[in-house]
Amino acid sequence: MSRFRIHPQLLVDCHVLGRLKHCHVLLHKNALVPWFILVPETGVTELLEVPAPLREQIMGECAAVAAFIKRRFHSTKINLAALGNLVPQLHLHVIGRSDNDACWPRPVWGNLDTDKSYITVELEAIREDLQQNVKSQE
Amino acid sequence: MSRFRIHPQLLVDCHVLGRLKHCHVLLHKNALVPWFILVPETGVTELLEVPAPLREQIMGECAAVAAFIKRRFHSTKINLAALGNLVPQLHLHVIGRSDNDACWPRPVWGNLDTDKSYITVELEAIREDLQQNVKSQE
Repeated sequence: MSRFRIHPQLLVDCHVLGRLKHCHVLLHKNALVPWFILVPETGVTELLEVPAPLREQIMGECAAVAAFIKRRFHSTKINLAALGNLVPQLHLHVIGRSDNDACWPRPVWGNLDTDKSYITVELEAIREDLQQNVKSQE
Repeated sequence: MSRFRIHPQLLVDCHVLGRLKHCHVLLHKNALVPWFILVPETGVTELLEVPAPLREQIMGECAAVAAFIKRRFHSTKINLAALGNLVPQLHLHVIGRSDNDACWPRPVWGNLDTDKSYITVELEAIREDLQQNVKSQE
């Protein structure tokens, strides 16, 4: 049984959508932009210190989620980041951006002045679409 | 002969330090934080759309630069990001962070209120250290 736990701050900020082979897939509660967060099941805190084979699997899962975001939300750009200044547990931001979004072209952190919530039916539709169509590569 | 050109905005913002096998290594001119930018020689604009074998080589070069940053600048954290909202050419931010730096814990983009320049001797020492000690993995 996995003893891995998602950091409590991420659980406050995000909806948990499911998991791929290596990463839990979260969706930031602010629906102004499609802001996904992948949490790999590893104790390593720096993406660039994850051993290369696992790192590439994690990147593959980010790529699958990025393609999903572009398809479902018509995002024209993906912002990818591993920051971790506030939450030390390794997590990757995979964010769909478009030139008409709420804070384009600025990064999302600190620049979304308002909050918008997902309605339940929308959240469930995203979850189902993700679970049906996003798979880890073997 | 390579026809690849680094985006002019990156050349305005950064010092060019050299190149690894796949990436040109730039250093942001603002010395408040050790802010490296790697520019892979590819026409793909999204890191997550780069074919996996090349992507992992690029990530390996980022990892080598991150280790260099931690050693030389005593950074305790690395912020890694591929944004590209302003400069479309693929470039990866590899930024050394510490809990006493100029904008901790906020991300650097838009949060560095002042500028500090590298003095020439310091810049040359960084360049030499990088060229001597950071290698691409084969």
